[in-house]
Amino acid sequence: MVDLNQLGEKAFKAKYELQGLSTDIKNKALAVVADSLVQNAPKILEANSIDLENAVKNGMSQGMQDRLRLDVKRIEAMAEGIRQVAALPDPVGEVIEEFERPNGLKISKVRVPMGVIGIIYESRPNVTADAFSLTFKSGNSTILKGGSDAINSNSAITDVIRDALASCSITPDAILLIRDTDREVTRQFMKLNEYVDVLIPRGSAGLIRSVVENSTIPVIETGTGNCHIYIDKDADLDKALPIIINAKTQRIGVCNAAESLVVHRDIKDRFLPLLDKAFKENHVEIHGDEETVKLIPDAIVATDEDYGKEYLDYKISVKTVDSVEEAIAHINKYNTGHSEAIITENDEAASKFLAGVDAACVYVNASTRFTDGFEFGFGAEIGISTQKLHARGPMGLKELTSYKYRIIGNGQIRK
Amino acid sequence: MVDLNQLGEKAFKAKYELQGLSTDIKNKALAVVADSLVQNAPKILEANSIDLENAVKNGMSQGMQDRLRLDVKRIEAMAEGIRQVAALPDPVGEVIEEFERPNGLKISKVRVPMGVIGIIYESRPNVTADAFSLTFKSGNSTILKGGSDAINSNSAITDVIRDALASCSITPDAILLIRDTDREVTRQFMKLNEYVDVLIPRGSAGLIRSVVENSTIPVIETGTGNCHIYIDKDADLDKALPIIINAKTQRIGVCNAAESLVVHRDIKDRFLPLLDKAFKENHVEIHGDEETVKLIPDAIVATDEDYGKEYLDYKISVKTVDSVEEAIAHINKYNTGHSEAIITENDEAASKFLAGVDAACVYVNASTRFTDGFEFGFGAEIGISTQKLHARGPMGLKELTSYKYRIIGNGQIRK
Repeated sequence: MVDLNQLGEKAFKAKYELQGLSTDIKNKALAVVADSLVQNAPKILEANSIDLENAVKNGMSQGMQDRLRLDVKRIEAMAEGIRQVAALPDPVGEVIEEFERPNGLKISKVRVPMGVIGIIYESRPNVTADAFSLTFKSGNSTILKGGSDAINSNSAITDVIRDALASCSITPDAILLIRDTDREVTRQFMKLNEYVDVLIPRGSAGLIRSVVENSTIPVIETGTGNCHIYIDKDADLDKALPIIINAKTQRIGVCNAAESLVVHRDIKDRFLPLLDKAFKENHVEIHGDEETVKLIPDAIVATDEDYGKEYLDYKISVKTVDSVEEAIAHINKYNTGHSEAIITENDEAASKFLAGVDAACVYVNASTRFTDGFEFGFGAEIGISTQKLHARGPMGLKELTSYKYRIIGNGQIRK
Repeated sequence: MVDLNQLGEKAFKAKYELQGLSTDIKNKALAVVADSLVQNAPKILEANSIDLENAVKNGMSQGMQDRLRLDVKRIEAMAEGIRQVAALPDPVGEVIEEFERPNGLKISKVRVPMGVIGIIYESRPNVTADAFSLTFKSGNSTILKGGSDAINSNSAITDVIRDALASCSITPDAILLIRDTDREVTRQFMKLNEYVDVLIPRGSAGLIRSVVENSTIPVIETGTGNCHIYIDKDADLDKALPIIINAKTQRIGVCNAAESLVVHRDIKDRFLPLLDKAFKENHVEIHGDEETVKLIPDAIVATDEDYGKEYLDYKISVKTVDSVEEAIAHINKYNTGHSEAIITENDEAASKFLAGVDAACVYVNASTRFTDGFEFGFGAEIGISTQKLHARGPMGLKELTSYKYRIIGNGQIRK
């Protein structure tokens, strides 16, 4: 089994080198890495073809095989992503606050890299390049643990990046990949507190739960989204229907897709038949409460389990309520703290919803699909945090940093 | 055994009421709570006397008994602390950032309460009132688990606070105390993810380690401080000695006390004899490396364990180095990410130290004892974070909040 302490120590040493690199040097290195990935595409594709052969042997689904598959275009997209990260502002060194104390101590709060960031992810090999570019630009070293399905692809990508860094006289240990696919190694990785400052899981709800439950390293929980749209009695249905169709069907497998509708009773008679028609056209199956089923007879009767479910499918639950307060209570009971929307022309209802709903992103009259680092203008995204500690919602470069206090004195002692 | 889910649900419900309270209502309630604690001093002292009797029976040390003991003056100090928190600015509702996207979405990042904050602490019963005032002012509900030694005192204080809140028509579930002293309850508390947003341990290194290892709730690690002072070759010894004596001896049992000195070789011949004299006067025992023992013959030879130790005692370790770089490497190897200082008149050395040392607070020419919410001007402190996620260094009211994004649209959908 691989010696994680050795890996940890390498990452730990690398972080001190990385935290001192200038923005210019980091950007130049990212450009070299991007070019190098494209130049080495044949090598990466060869490794990927081994993963794909194994996937076929192991009976992997077509959808999963598609996630695993690389081609020249996808490698070029990976490189392009890295170039985009290079073009983003460097968060490191920003002075967040500055103040002087009555005793003359000058205190400044300065943005610094987190240190060593661990990332545990699943099938998509492009996450390897993606995670590297974000952690590197924000001055961190990273230890990656990808899915065993993609081990050959991930290894090849990592090797290309390491060689490119070395050619720039930067420590290749900025990126370290755990190449041992033994599950016990992953469990040990989650307890590597001595070396790893934060652990970010990216992938299925099961993966994330396992990391939250087993890690002793601070975790940023990402990605599970049981997102609701509440159609208020004062909703403009010409806005409501396109937003709902967009949020439910534009991409069904993503965490910011809508999974549940909450409908005010005063509007249900007018709204639900229109919804029925729109969802029939878009092949969306409705799981509704009693009131819903009265108006949409072929809807399936919803269970409590439905309201708590992130379908990631052409399915949606519908619940009717008497008031915005009841809508808020329902959402706060079942949501995962991701993205929730109200459709209303009523300012008071909008204010109540914005204040009362407990989630990273709360929308008025817009699709939940906008919860995304690019859509927010962050230029990149390592994931969407659904916890409240450290970062909430889309996480870009800034969210991969911490801060330190620098205190300048001239001999002050505490009385 | 107590039903933690029931407690959790109460705190969960309370948080929605608390997040909507105006600053004025919160401040008035805090004033009522403060007065009520003083008025009910006899009741609290009676409960405290039971804890003290048990403490004597159980052979508790004098020092620990002193921590546990309340008197009228200490209760008045508790009340005064609450009044001070009432006077602080309310962090809730602050607009941290605001921006508009090209598609017309108006996004604002707004400071909101964390939700439910769990606090696990040890003997001092004043933490009960302290923790309440900070979590309440920042709009959170709190579930407290104090030490079993102080259970009667903590219960009495909690009851007084709950009654005072109820008299202000505010939910008493803003503060909930786990009154079951079974250790299994504490273990279950650490896994109450459904209801608790963050867990903050306050107490000994052992308590904190246990919480970090066993909690599945996000934890803010606080308090362990293996703090160093590096005496550079260009140190002004007239500054160095008072700072060292202050940092080591002003209060030996605190996390921001100095536990280790790092001394540049070029200054050791001049500095160490002065240090020896000053420490002899202050009864501080030196554990030094070979070079140190050469100059201070009655110093104890330091082991590797010494360098990693938070003595919390009249003891200090001393290590000699050849350069500021070696000092930084030594400190980064052994420190706990709390507070580190350099004594130097050399700007280049100071800059290197500020940039290279990985800790919450890095000082130039000042005592590490200033790492404190009050000394930083935060007006209060729930603890000192030694992790990098969320908050680093002294944590005041702001550090007990999270944020949410409010997004206002007019029908936007994602293309």
